[in-house]
Amino acid sequence: MNSYDLIIIGGGPAGLTAGLYASRAKLKTLLIEKKAAGGQIATTEHIENYPGFAQGSGQELVKIMEEQAARFGAEFLAAGATAVDFSAQEKIITTGKGEFRAPAVIIATGCSARRLEVPGEKEFIGRGVSFCATCDGAFYEDLPVMVVGGGDAAVEEALYLTRFVEKVYLVHRRDALRATKIVQDRVFNNPKIEVVWNSVVEELQGDELLERVVVRNVKDGRKTEIAVNGIFIYIGFLPNTGFLAGQIRLNESGYVVTDDRMETSVPGVFAAGDCREKLLRQVVTATGDGATAAFAVEKYLENLR
Amino acid sequence: MNSYDLIIIGGGPAGLTAGLYASRAKLKTLLIEKKAAGGQIATTEHIENYPGFAQGSGQELVKIMEEQAARFGAEFLAAGATAVDFSAQEKIITTGKGEFRAPAVIIATGCSARRLEVPGEKEFIGRGVSFCATCDGAFYEDLPVMVVGGGDAAVEEALYLTRFVEKVYLVHRRDALRATKIVQDRVFNNPKIEVVWNSVVEELQGDELLERVVVRNVKDGRKTEIAVNGIFIYIGFLPNTGFLAGQIRLNESGYVVTDDRMETSVPGVFAAGDCREKLLRQVVTATGDGATAAFAVEKYLENLR
Repeated sequence: MNSYDLIIIGGGPAGLTAGLYASRAKLKTLLIEKKAAGGQIATTEHIENYPGFAQGSGQELVKIMEEQAARFGAEFLAAGATAVDFSAQEKIITTGKGEFRAPAVIIATGCSARRLEVPGEKEFIGRGVSFCATCDGAFYEDLPVMVVGGGDAAVEEALYLTRFVEKVYLVHRRDALRATKIVQDRVFNNPKIEVVWNSVVEELQGDELLERVVVRNVKDGRKTEIAVNGIFIYIGFLPNTGFLAGQIRLNESGYVVTDDRMETSVPGVFAAGDCREKLLRQVVTATGDGATAAFAVEKYLENLR
Repeated sequence: MNSYDLIIIGGGPAGLTAGLYASRAKLKTLLIEKKAAGGQIATTEHIENYPGFAQGSGQELVKIMEEQAARFGAEFLAAGATAVDFSAQEKIITTGKGEFRAPAVIIATGCSARRLEVPGEKEFIGRGVSFCATCDGAFYEDLPVMVVGGGDAAVEEALYLTRFVEKVYLVHRRDALRATKIVQDRVFNNPKIEVVWNSVVEELQGDELLERVVVRNVKDGRKTEIAVNGIFIYIGFLPNTGFLAGQIRLNESGYVVTDDRMETSVPGVFAAGDCREKLLRQVVTATGDGATAAFAVEKYLENLR
């Protein structure tokens, strides 16, 4: 039957860890993932900041997590969740492969970085293109890099990168930053940062690795090639929570709001990982969330009995 | 000089992960640990629920974490913190090897399970003696085990263990449980649980692995041997926070109270891992805490500039 103790939506590190903990605790667990398991991290070439994993690719790391969850009996379904109904104690998840039911649900759908959608961007992901300075900044020691964006996140990441890199080109499509004044002052006072005003990225070029970025000035249309080894794209993140609208409380940016037990505004519905409102989105915080959510589900189900 | 950006007190998974993240972000970081690095988990023989670590011993896992923190430049000091002074912006940590100063501190001192202090207990840790059913319950599939204690934690763990094991002897020194009524009813209705009243553990016996426990009835003095493969000791946990009294807010059990950025009641002082008030104490939640605390320290120091 299509009935479980727990349904986990999303197969990145948060979902896989929840699957490991829940199935190891003998909960009948279904994990739904529309693409291959792994989430955003599976596209990362090189990870050195997940504790206990000396180094390797994102794919290698999530493969171990997937095997751990499977070893204890979590079932996997390759399908996307198209709709949810959390109105009754038994929750209903509609997917491309039918309807599934469980008294408890963990949402671990992650978030996606907005992309530039220019030639070369996709090809150089993990080879120069990054969406996370905390993750990848340390790989660019003494090299020139570019940051795209003008909001607080972009500007803070540009400042952070100056700890490592030789130079940061901050490319912004307008003639003023949106970031708060105090952060702007730090940018203007930092000799490593050069702001490239009124400009957009046209194309990313290189051989095996990124070597240069073509930038176009939106005022005069002139194009310039800037030699950089890395480009950090900070034009916004979108949590993958569109299918939840009206069912649970989301914050103004669309992230799921939870308490510190990972429970959402609906009893029995929990969230873990990048889709959740939180300070730091990293594999290591996603796995922590996943374990806590699975443990909270156990306690929730105990109390239903 | 004895001056750092960040001092981390404690070298278990939370402290080591904070050390990895902080030193990778170029913070000058000192990690203080009085024993060998690793914390409680270093005494665990077999770990299978840390995501991304297929399986191995606790010692192996923390060794990787230690190397990761060291690779990015964290300094290690083998000393205990004897006193702290958090009254000024520059915090002072006094150790057996002198005084150290930093504007930011992360407390990751963990907690310790209270022990029975009987013959055989120490020898069989990791070979039958456990302080955590969530960690080790799955290793006792279809075997008889014992739980010692009568409070909520002991009784809930006894119920949890019935998912795996053949039988649970619940040994309690009094003639009534301290656990809440509803949980007690579940115990009395569970055919897998036998309560051994008015009894205390005298000795743990076995060859390589635990085989039996000698229990003494405190009313009539009679001793009984009970054959079990595992014993779960739930007579209380003590957070290692005694040296912090009067400096930061602790809850009534002595755990450090933080917000979801891991910041304590004193600005610039953060806490991570088992010493913190939280739902689930596991390696994977400790590492998540450690990364979040280090990231929050970065932001804190940025704003001091």
